[in-house]
Amino acid sequence: MRKVKRSSRLVEMTQYLLSQPYAIISLTTFAERYQSAKSSISEDLAIIKEVFEEQGLGQLQTIAGAAGGVIYMPAMSKTTALEKIQTICSELEQPERVLPGGYLYMTDMLGQPSLIADLGRMFATAFAGRKIDVVMTVETKGISLAYATAACLNIPVVIVRRDNKVTEGSAVSINYVSGSTKRIQTMSLARRALKEQANVLIIDDFMKAGGTIRGMMDLLLEFKASVAGVGVFVESGEIDQEERLFEDYISLAKLTAVDMKTKQSTVIPGNYFN
Amino acid sequence: MRKVKRSSRLVEMTQYLLSQPYAIISLTTFAERYQSAKSSISEDLAIIKEVFEEQGLGQLQTIAGAAGGVIYMPAMSKTTALEKIQTICSELEQPERVLPGGYLYMTDMLGQPSLIADLGRMFATAFAGRKIDVVMTVETKGISLAYATAACLNIPVVIVRRDNKVTEGSAVSINYVSGSTKRIQTMSLARRALKEQANVLIIDDFMKAGGTIRGMMDLLLEFKASVAGVGVFVESGEIDQEERLFEDYISLAKLTAVDMKTKQSTVIPGNYFN
Repeated sequence: MRKVKRSSRLVEMTQYLLSQPYAIISLTTFAERYQSAKSSISEDLAIIKEVFEEQGLGQLQTIAGAAGGVIYMPAMSKTTALEKIQTICSELEQPERVLPGGYLYMTDMLGQPSLIADLGRMFATAFAGRKIDVVMTVETKGISLAYATAACLNIPVVIVRRDNKVTEGSAVSINYVSGSTKRIQTMSLARRALKEQANVLIIDDFMKAGGTIRGMMDLLLEFKASVAGVGVFVESGEIDQEERLFEDYISLAKLTAVDMKTKQSTVIPGNYFN
Repeated sequence: MRKVKRSSRLVEMTQYLLSQPYAIISLTTFAERYQSAKSSISEDLAIIKEVFEEQGLGQLQTIAGAAGGVIYMPAMSKTTALEKIQTICSELEQPERVLPGGYLYMTDMLGQPSLIADLGRMFATAFAGRKIDVVMTVETKGISLAYATAACLNIPVVIVRRDNKVTEGSAVSINYVSGSTKRIQTMSLARRALKEQANVLIIDDFMKAGGTIRGMMDLLLEFKASVAGVGVFVESGEIDQEERLFEDYISLAKLTAVDMKTKQSTVIPGNYFN
């Protein structure tokens, strides 16, 4: 084992903490890793904590006691989040994004890793503090968002399939009515994919009436699991509130108006910023 | 603007570089950000470079000249990668993972963000140096791997759909024969999802004869795009080499034998480690 200078130690500890969010790392681990006194490690952590908090990157929480250590909880400040969302809203308002049925083309945006990482960090900040065991989404477009969120929270992702061709042992399928198209559809999840009693954060890219998310909630009942929260990237405001199939959700952006003729749309920050 | 001490600067610069792989960051950007002399910034970068390389986290490359600066290229050393893959292989050999048709259940593993991040970093290391504009996969299970790879390379992801219900303007659909089931299937991609002449890295979770990946290659022809590389997490060795539909690919693990009766399987490191 080599003794490491403070400057190198700070670089290594920073990357180590960033790569392991929500893991308790004991001071002993660091002290042994760098052959340094715990008091030096504590000073290092104080420096890192100050920078992370000043930069709005999240919190470094110290846990006292024998099982103690430090936890990094990624976050994004509301100010930074709002700035980023405003740019995203302008991007979403481009006329060529308007699709038939009042939808917006946003697949290209959902394919940009750095944008997705930002959105995942916003969801992780919004739901920090809730007891969450797993992030769930339904294929396909919400998957990247679900992973980005789960990466910040350091928990697994479960993906519900839109058919019943699950070849992974016994599966639970339910029928649900897509709120906007009123058509009956099927979604399935392998029995072994989700533990009973799990606390599940549902993440999706777009929500109109919320039929698909309502379907996931109904599926959770079959697993005796609970909804820990619902987060959507863009909600459509082009729907009566009473048509919405549930009330408690967080949206990052809201599509308030689409004119199919002129291809003009209006996208504003979602209820997370209210 | 505040002047920042070296210790804080190292923490900030480390996280800044880690969050922006493959982006050229000019020394001026850092110098202005921290109100520090470029010579100090250069010293900081030398410290960070040394730690990153010592830890096998990747390279920090300096580009001289007016448009110069520094680029962080994430990587994972072969030694670290092999250690991790060996653990993954043992995990994959668990008898309860054997599925009908000689497949392995690995959805739970593909749902773990930290494992996926490791695999993505291995692919990024394997394909570093090739000219790649975009990462492509077909829904659903390979999506997380594609994102993890793309995040390291800082390029977008394009997801091919397994049906032709693409509602995103004009789309290109092709029929392909799944090598293992011999059934004809359809895959589609919206015309606007991929630029012509793009250099595409294809990533998928599992490959037997390679029919699905061959399908993606054929789809690329329709876009006048090129295959920059093919990476699969697990390849099945339970197939004659002449049945394989293409030759140039990188696998991280290889399923060499499955006994359906005893549920015994053998998984070894893939051709990346040869």
